[in-house]
Amino acid sequence: MNLLSALEKAFSESPQNLEENPRVAYAGTRGSYGEEASLSFFKGTGELFPCKTFDDVFEALNQGTSDYGVLPIENSSTGSISTVYDLLSKYQYYIVGEEEVRVRHCLLAPKGANLQTIKEVYSHPQGFSQSQDFLNEYPQWQCIPYYNTAIGAAYVAQKNDPNLAAIASKRAGEIYDLLVLAEDINFSQTNVTRFVIISRELKFFKDPTRVSIAFHLPHRPGALYEIIGVFSVFSLNLCKIESRPLLNQNWEYLFFVDFTGNISQNTLANLIPIIQEKADYFQFLGYYPQYDQTKI
Amino acid sequence: MNLLSALEKAFSESPQNLEENPRVAYAGTRGSYGEEASLSFFKGTGELFPCKTFDDVFEALNQGTSDYGVLPIENSSTGSISTVYDLLSKYQYYIVGEEEVRVRHCLLAPKGANLQTIKEVYSHPQGFSQSQDFLNEYPQWQCIPYYNTAIGAAYVAQKNDPNLAAIASKRAGEIYDLLVLAEDINFSQTNVTRFVIISRELKFFKDPTRVSIAFHLPHRPGALYEIIGVFSVFSLNLCKIESRPLLNQNWEYLFFVDFTGNISQNTLANLIPIIQEKADYFQFLGYYPQYDQTKI
Repeated sequence: MNLLSALEKAFSESPQNLEENPRVAYAGTRGSYGEEASLSFFKGTGELFPCKTFDDVFEALNQGTSDYGVLPIENSSTGSISTVYDLLSKYQYYIVGEEEVRVRHCLLAPKGANLQTIKEVYSHPQGFSQSQDFLNEYPQWQCIPYYNTAIGAAYVAQKNDPNLAAIASKRAGEIYDLLVLAEDINFSQTNVTRFVIISRELKFFKDPTRVSIAFHLPHRPGALYEIIGVFSVFSLNLCKIESRPLLNQNWEYLFFVDFTGNISQNTLANLIPIIQEKADYFQFLGYYPQYDQTKI
Repeated sequence: MNLLSALEKAFSESPQNLEENPRVAYAGTRGSYGEEASLSFFKGTGELFPCKTFDDVFEALNQGTSDYGVLPIENSSTGSISTVYDLLSKYQYYIVGEEEVRVRHCLLAPKGANLQTIKEVYSHPQGFSQSQDFLNEYPQWQCIPYYNTAIGAAYVAQKNDPNLAAIASKRAGEIYDLLVLAEDINFSQTNVTRFVIISRELKFFKDPTRVSIAFHLPHRPGALYEIIGVFSVFSLNLCKIESRPLLNQNWEYLFFVDFTGNISQNTLANLIPIIQEKADYFQFLGYYPQYDQTKI
C-alpha cells in the first residue's frame, strides 16, 4: 500500500482507541524513566515488558510479542537519541504518541554508605553527563558507564557495598531499597526526556497535532530552503529540524522534521506529494497528539 | 572585543601558521581514533596528551596546559556528538580545523582466545551500536560499555583473560598486543568520524573554506525560513543544520549550522549582523579548511 492510501485508511479509521490491555515493550528496567513514561502514557494499564536495548524493543514488535514500544527520542539537555531514528528508518514503524518525563537524578547507595565511602558510581553515560557539575566536586570517584540508570541502581543494590553508588531516579532508589545520598543532581533543573510510543501500523489516536517526517534531499544549493518554504506556504510550524549523515554516502544528510499547525487529511494529501517530488527519499514517521506541556 | 573586531583581527593575522611543537590534548588514549586524528592533523609533530573526558580536553586549554584540543563532533552513522557542541558553547572556544578518520572496528582479544571463548566484550557504547549486526550473531556475549574503544582494549590486554574481548581499531590491537578475531565488523563500510581541532583564540589557518555557527531564534513561524533565506541570498551552501533543545527552556532550540561557499571577510561582515539581528543569540564557532574528502 502506498503512503497516501495508508494515510487515507488511517484517517478513515481514526480516532483509534487504545486496546484494553496492550502489551508494551520499553527500553529499560523496573524503576527506569522508560517504565515511568510507559506507566504514564498507558495510564497504568497494559502488560509492561522491559527490554535491554532499543533494538530489542523493535524486535518485540517485529516478532509480535508486543503491541507498542516506548523509546526515548530526545533529551532537553543532551539532544536527540539518534539510534532511535535509525531504527525507525530500518523497521519502517510509526510514532503513535509521545510522553515526557522529567529527569531528576539522585545519587543512590546501599544502607551504611555516605558521600565519604563512595569510590565507584554506576549510571548510563547520559546520567553522568547530565550530572557533570555535581560529579566535578568528587574527582576521586570512578564513573562506570552502564546500560541504563535503573540497571545501575539494581547492580549497586545487589552488590550491597558502601563503596558503590548509582545515579538514577528517586523511584529506582525506592524499588531497589537504596539510600538517597544527594537529590536533583542533574545540572539542568528542567531536564526533560521525550519518549515516543511506536507501533507496526500507521494509526491515529484522538486529536493528533504533531507530524514527524524524514527525507533526503539531492545535494544542490537551495534544496533545503525550498522545502522549508513549502512548510511556510502551508502555514505549518517547524518544531524540530535535524540533519543526520546518510549511511554509505558520507556527509549527505537525512533530515528529520517535526511540525504542528492546522493539519487535515487534505493538508497532508497536498503537502506530501510536493515534498516527495523534491526529495530523493521520504518517510512519514507519524501523526500523533503532542504532549501537554502543562502536565510537566 | 566584539565579534566583528575579533574577526577583523583574525583576518588581518591570517593565515596563521601552526606552532613548532604544539601541545595537543585529545579525548581518548593511546590507540584511539582521537589519537589517530591528532597524529594526522598535526602530521606527527607536537606533544600529544590523552584526556579521559571531553570536559578534560576543554579544561587542558582553559588551564593553559595545551594549545589545541581534538574532539569527535560527528559520526557518519551515529550522528552528532552533542556534548562537544554544548562544551563549545560553555567555554566559547573556536574550531580551527577538522580531520576525518575512517572507523574500522575489530574484535580484539588476548592470545589463546577465539570466538568460542569470548563471554564479555568491552567498548564505547558507539562501538557497540556501530557493530550491532556483528554482535547480533553472538547474543550470549555480554557487552560492557567503557569510556572509549582503546581504553577497553587496554583493559582487556591487562586482564589477559581469553573470555574477554574489546571492539576497537586494528591499531589499538597492535599497541596493546591483542589478536584480531574479526575485522571490519562495523555495519557501515564507509563509517567516518569527523574530529574538530579547537583553540582558545579565533584564528584562521591557510585556505579556510567552512564556517560553523550557532544561533537561537525567537519562537515565531517563519523565523527559520527567513534565516535559511539569508544563506541563499549570499549563495552559501548549508552543509549541516541541527536544532538542539535549549537548556532551561524546554523545546526551544539552538541551531548549529555549517556552510561553505565564496566566503570573504566582506561576506562575513555583511552576513553576521543580519543573522544577529534575527537571532536572540549568536555564536561564531570557527572558519577553517574543510577536510579533503579525497584523502579518505
